[in-house]
Amino acid sequence: MRTRPLKVALLGCGVVGSEVARIMTTHADDLTARIGAPVELAGVAVRRPDRVREGIDPALITTDATALVKRGDIDVVVEVIGGIEPARSLITTAFEHGASVVSANKALLAQDGAALHAAAGEHGKDLYYEAAVAGAIPLIRPLRESLAGDKINRVMGIVNGTTNFILDKMDSTGAGYQEALDEATALGYAEADPTADVEGFDAAAKAAILAGIAFHTRVRLDDVYREGMTEVTAADFASAKEMGCTIKLLAICERAADGASVTARVHPAMIPLSHPLASVRGAYNAVFVESDAAGQLMFYGPGAGGAPTASAVLGDLVAVCRNRIGGATGPGESAYAALPVSPMGDVVTRYHISLDVADKPGVLAQVATVFAEHGVSIDTVRQQGKDGEASLVVVTHRASDAALTGTVEALRKLDTVRGVASIMRVEGE
Amino acid sequence: MRTRPLKVALLGCGVVGSEVARIMTTHADDLTARIGAPVELAGVAVRRPDRVREGIDPALITTDATALVKRGDIDVVVEVIGGIEPARSLITTAFEHGASVVSANKALLAQDGAALHAAAGEHGKDLYYEAAVAGAIPLIRPLRESLAGDKINRVMGIVNGTTNFILDKMDSTGAGYQEALDEATALGYAEADPTADVEGFDAAAKAAILAGIAFHTRVRLDDVYREGMTEVTAADFASAKEMGCTIKLLAICERAADGASVTARVHPAMIPLSHPLASVRGAYNAVFVESDAAGQLMFYGPGAGGAPTASAVLGDLVAVCRNRIGGATGPGESAYAALPVSPMGDVVTRYHISLDVADKPGVLAQVATVFAEHGVSIDTVRQQGKDGEASLVVVTHRASDAALTGTVEALRKLDTVRGVASIMRVEGE
Ligand SMILES: NC(=O)c1ccc[n+]([C@@H]2O[C@H](COP(=O)([O-])OP(=O)(O)OC[C@H]3O[C@@H](n4cnc5c(N)ncnc54)[C@H](OP(=O)(O)O)[C@@H]3O)[C@@H](O)[C@H]2O)c1
Ligand SMILES: NC(=O)c1ccc[n+]([C@@H]2O[C@H](COP(=O)([O-])OP(=O)(O)OC[C@H]3O[C@@H](n4cnc5c(N)ncnc54)[C@H](OP(=O)(O)O)[C@@H]3O)[C@@H](O)[C@H]2O)c1
Repeated sequence: MRTRPLKVALLGCGVVGSEVARIMTTHADDLTARIGAPVELAGVAVRRPDRVREGIDPALITTDATALVKRGDIDVVVEVIGGIEPARSLITTAFEHGASVVSANKALLAQDGAALHAAAGEHGKDLYYEAAVAGAIPLIRPLRESLAGDKINRVMGIVNGTTNFILDKMDSTGAGYQEALDEATALGYAEADPTADVEGFDAAAKAAILAGIAFHTRVRLDDVYREGMTEVTAADFASAKEMGCTIKLLAICERAADGASVTARVHPAMIPLSHPLASVRGAYNAVFVESDAAGQLMFYGPGAGGAPTASAVLGDLVAVCRNRIGGATGPGESAYAALPVSPMGDVVTRYHISLDVADKPGVLAQVATVFAEHGVSIDTVRQQGKDGEASLVVVTHRASDAALTGTVEALRKLDTVRGVASIMRVEGE
Repeated sequence: MRTRPLKVALLGCGVVGSEVARIMTTHADDLTARIGAPVELAGVAVRRPDRVREGIDPALITTDATALVKRGDIDVVVEVIGGIEPARSLITTAFEHGASVVSANKALLAQDGAALHAAAGEHGKDLYYEAAVAGAIPLIRPLRESLAGDKINRVMGIVNGTTNFILDKMDSTGAGYQEALDEATALGYAEADPTADVEGFDAAAKAAILAGIAFHTRVRLDDVYREGMTEVTAADFASAKEMGCTIKLLAICERAADGASVTARVHPAMIPLSHPLASVRGAYNAVFVESDAAGQLMFYGPGAGGAPTASAVLGDLVAVCRNRIGGATGPGESAYAALPVSPMGDVVTRYHISLDVADKPGVLAQVATVFAEHGVSIDTVRQQGKDGEASLVVVTHRASDAALTGTVEALRKLDTVRGVASIMRVEGE
């Protein structure tokens, strides 16, 4: 065993960083044995240097993150600051000064992954980021390495714990969105500004990362269709129940049936209660992967939290340290397939549509004609009268999103259609 | 990209091997892109050379596996023959002649893993075996790499598809063991001689491998307590249902509460219906992992079958090829913790015991006294009379297996206890 310790610069010491530091200290002997050399915390960059940070030598604390990554003796930079800048510049500077990087930064990876991978490659360094998607759940490594000999056709997952907590509450208690969000906030599952979670931005970043890895294709954040879950209602859950379904906010990355293109999207969807993702409770995450040879796999666990995320960061840290000792690097970006990313209109799935209609004869025929004209085939229709008004619930067969959008536009123009109460995709069948 | 192809020797071309060969051919371009060099099938060793093997150049077929691995130009040997010999000698010879090895052979790895790892290390070669445990499910790599910075406390899994299929049938149809086994055989889920599966030998081999990796400790096959599932009855399932449980054949690897020792065992057990493992249906496998930082993770998927197992083999093949090109090796055996493996008597869990007793006053008091004398604390007792006979169902609090065994021995000596109808461990609470 070599004895010169590997030096680690920790950028950020918040929810995740403080746990990384804690585990590096408490599990130091195990890490040494597993890596083959000791790892040493060489510096900790923060914004507020005067905060008390338990278990961390105050001499290590600095506000000058740039100077830390430029020191030249740093083996691995662990970036757990978050956001685009200064994280991006710090990572690039780290590569330039000889360090490898472990990051948990999904926003940055989704936006600038290609450039960061290129910088890592140019300097012969590693860029690992298991913690960026689904927290503690080993997912990047299984997709990138375990399934490297297989052909992945679909990755469908619950990758945001906040929204899963809210939807699970709505499902189990009949609560509305706002009430469930308030509870999530009170319990610390939602941030004061929950936009990134509930509008699907966080999940979209993860979808871009997952699609890129699964399909060996660059998928930019802009390529990901995104719809939040703020408009899901208690009535939608009631409709889902009638169909033997529940509602989840899903990140779905798919290869088209002809294999020639891919799509990535985030939106709420109904999934059958029998689907393994349906029983993912609370703030847990789970990702379902379908491939040619392996078939259906699922990975389940805590998608966030300081210690779980630190577990993923440390797994990467051990790998990167081993690579450095062995003089090797792990797998870099794999984008050779360079498949086109199709727009949402090309996505083919099923739909559950609730219409408020006039309660008079001939409405169903009119509505059915509109569906037929747009090539959207109807699976089931249920008509319910209520005080002169009626509702019509239509579940379609598989159709393209473009065809469905055209159908809905035309439906809105019908006199007899008072409103489109909800449109929900049906997945996982 | 280098252009000299990496040469692969395939040992065995049966259920798994034929799929490995097929995917190597159909996915050749993808494999080349992912590895960074083409991979070429250099030879295929079988027992019966004259069988028609679709898609395989007959010139590659040989019955002389030893000569194939001794050729000297082989980069990777894929061993999918199975069994101890000649697989063991072939793998050792492969290392001696400069090849790395990918194997799916759980029996061999469980029995001789340490020696094979030593041989690999001595020659600076890789030994990968993701397919040996839970087929397609990425498990070895996540445990060995993703969780390398964490402390795993328990690995509990359904790692045998045949027995899960049988138990699931018994649960859902009320069938007895023999009837469910017959169906599994008819459907090809059970082999003509199902002993290795139903007596838990297969699961025990996997438990030894998993415990070794999870605890960084050598765990021999003999260290694994093993109890098959042939004695599970429809009555046991009825009892389980009353407790809100089902019955699964579980492989359980645990770190003792004080962290100073580990245990590994395979036996049928009741688990609550709310536990994620309870809903693993049919021949699927799933493994639940508990660690200090990550918390609870689950990995789910097909545990066997030609294509799924080949997916795992090919993931390893890609990794080993990348390592060769990079002049590196992956993580070898990690047994530095060298924790003692405790006997079954030290395992602490809960128990469900059904007793046939005389239907007269004072029996319950007598029975309760025996439990108390052995330090086994009772959680609930249910008494049921039936025609002069009565049954007593006792569910205990956590107690050591040794204490429970002592209790049962003493109960058998009571005049009023006619028989011990069943003893079942209760896990996952
Ligand atoms: N929290 C989770 O559950 C979770 C899960 C998965 C991934 N992640 C990712 O992990 C990363 C970190 O998340 P977090 O929850 O740990 O964030 P956090 O609690 O807000 O911590 C951020 C840390 O970065 C420091 N920091 C901020 N700006 C800085 C600057 N300019 N220079 C130096 N240090 C600076 C902060 O310093 P002060 O301490 O002085 O404020 C703080 O220590 C993010 O990319 C996030 O997406 C988090
Ligand atoms: N099947 C699964 O679902 C599964 C799942 C996980 C792991 N595994 C493991 O994968 C390995 C292979 O399993 P399998 O189901 O593919 O077995 P299999 O169908 O019985 O195939 C065994 C192959 O090995 C060949 N062979 C046997 N003895 C040989 C010898 N002395 N020299 C050269 N070749 C020899 C056989 O040749 P012939 O073709 O001429 O008979 C056959 O091609 C085993 O270790 C098993 O535990 C299997």
